[in-house]
Amino acid sequence: MLDCAIIGGGPAGLTAGLYTTRGGLKNVTLFEMGMPGGQITQSSEIENYPGFFEHHKTGMDFMDTWQEQCFHFGLKHEMKKVERVAKTGEHFTITLEGGENVEAKTAIVCTGSTPKRAGFKGEDEFFGRGVSTCATCDGFFYKDKPVAVLGGGDTALEEAHYLSNICSDVYVIHRRDTFRAAPSTVDRIKRKENIHLITDTVIEEVFGDAMGVSGVKLKNKAGKTEELNIPGLFVFVGHDVNNAVLKDEKGNFICGMNDWGQVIVDLSMRTSVPGLFAAGDMRIEAPKQVVVAAGDGATAALQVISYIQEQV
Amino acid sequence: MLDCAIIGGGPAGLTAGLYTTRGGLKNVTLFEMGMPGGQITQSSEIENYPGFFEHHKTGMDFMDTWQEQCFHFGLKHEMKKVERVAKTGEHFTITLEGGENVEAKTAIVCTGSTPKRAGFKGEDEFFGRGVSTCATCDGFFYKDKPVAVLGGGDTALEEAHYLSNICSDVYVIHRRDTFRAAPSTVDRIKRKENIHLITDTVIEEVFGDAMGVSGVKLKNKAGKTEELNIPGLFVFVGHDVNNAVLKDEKGNFICGMNDWGQVIVDLSMRTSVPGLFAAGDMRIEAPKQVVVAAGDGATAALQVISYIQEQV
Repeated sequence: MLDCAIIGGGPAGLTAGLYTTRGGLKNVTLFEMGMPGGQITQSSEIENYPGFFEHHKTGMDFMDTWQEQCFHFGLKHEMKKVERVAKTGEHFTITLEGGENVEAKTAIVCTGSTPKRAGFKGEDEFFGRGVSTCATCDGFFYKDKPVAVLGGGDTALEEAHYLSNICSDVYVIHRRDTFRAAPSTVDRIKRKENIHLITDTVIEEVFGDAMGVSGVKLKNKAGKTEELNIPGLFVFVGHDVNNAVLKDEKGNFICGMNDWGQVIVDLSMRTSVPGLFAAGDMRIEAPKQVVVAAGDGATAALQVISYIQEQV
Repeated sequence: MLDCAIIGGGPAGLTAGLYTTRGGLKNVTLFEMGMPGGQITQSSEIENYPGFFEHHKTGMDFMDTWQEQCFHFGLKHEMKKVERVAKTGEHFTITLEGGENVEAKTAIVCTGSTPKRAGFKGEDEFFGRGVSTCATCDGFFYKDKPVAVLGGGDTALEEAHYLSNICSDVYVIHRRDTFRAAPSTVDRIKRKENIHLITDTVIEEVFGDAMGVSGVKLKNKAGKTEELNIPGLFVFVGHDVNNAVLKDEKGNFICGMNDWGQVIVDLSMRTSVPGLFAAGDMRIEAPKQVVVAAGDGATAALQVISYIQEQV
């Protein structure tokens, strides 16, 4: 019987592992198929995690210390895919791929969310080297430079607005001529002089060289193509919340979720199921920042320790 | 007119400064009387902030990078004491000591909370060198060693329970013979074999040498004194929430607070007053950990940027 099963090995899961084991829990396992680290390991540079401010260090470098630190206090790592988390009586059953079951007193689920790819040529090749899915993280690297934003929803336009305060020009590329975003958001965007809307247009390709992105090839509804020279492209075409482990065999969620499939938590990362906690990018109102996910993981871990103490 | 006034220079305030300025806000000032850094600068070692894992580095070393990083993007620092934050129409008025007023579109208050001192001899001298007010932070440094806990409330007993999972023995010293803590908590404590209750007893002195604490002198109600040899002493006699800046001239709070004087916030660090955010140890349910306070600061900062965008 595990004291705690941690599902997911990004910043939230690693920090939860650090805090549970350093807090005296003897039997804590982090389930993560590959190397822990999370999305941030794909970043080419990080400057908004407080305390880490070294230029030319990548997301992989950044996560180096975390690995050592978070496993230092006895956290175990199982390189297995979790199929399902279920509450069975007082405890949790973690079902692994292949059908093996592991019992746990508590569970912290922090499987994150995955930004959707738009599917144009070069998108994967230049991801983390000019193609980004996070304005908060990467906008500043294009200070006083022009960037493009792909998307037409609320997030795309809000992020375009955010970028317009940092970048010289923001080109919003949208495949339709109307926006799904709220009318008030669209109005605000139209009033910003350095935001330029390019509608009825798709991105065919992002191109560049070893240094990164240098531009995008656009194609409009009429079939006309043009090139836009920009060093940065932000893709906001939605997120997939990685919540499959919280579905039971019938496909129903075992805890309260919102309409977007994010886990409803309170300030202490409690879900609607006692003993089950969620942390990081999969929860409601997540700012999707490493430092916030790490804070969530610490918070959930301390709640796990209290929860177990109260069961005795 | 400031875009954002940040009151308090601990991890929450510094991170809020980093995220607001890196997010493109031009006019952000952090108000903090002394050097920013917060309580953590008094720590002699830190090993639970993810990404910082260097033995023999102190809280001062830890905060070095933060200073450089958080002020790198244009954050200003005013070494002035804030008397009061008030919402006047659409904006906020920050009243400084001496009566000067500064206007701001938004405010993030993160003035923290201060653990109370018990007042025995040696308490200040050995603070951060064996005397601690945070089991989560420092408990692990006493793994398999005996420690003492001073206090009789819920926090004291819950922290004693936490420590009992890490330390060999936990001596709880309480000046009365009954505990203010919830009966269920007292029962749980009594069932733990390595927790020893020493009631009707006060600490007269903590003593040690250049290496840190080596023991405490106790005195019971009958006047009998004894020495207890322990390398660590945890003092849990309450916290003062530093909420004075949120009181108006009549002494009423300007936003919703709980019975303990902590600011009521939601998951996005919004208070009951639009444009006013709280972050860090002064908010409800704060785990009082650097990484969580930093996450709060980032969250509040991103909300400030959205709030200002929506006002345009």
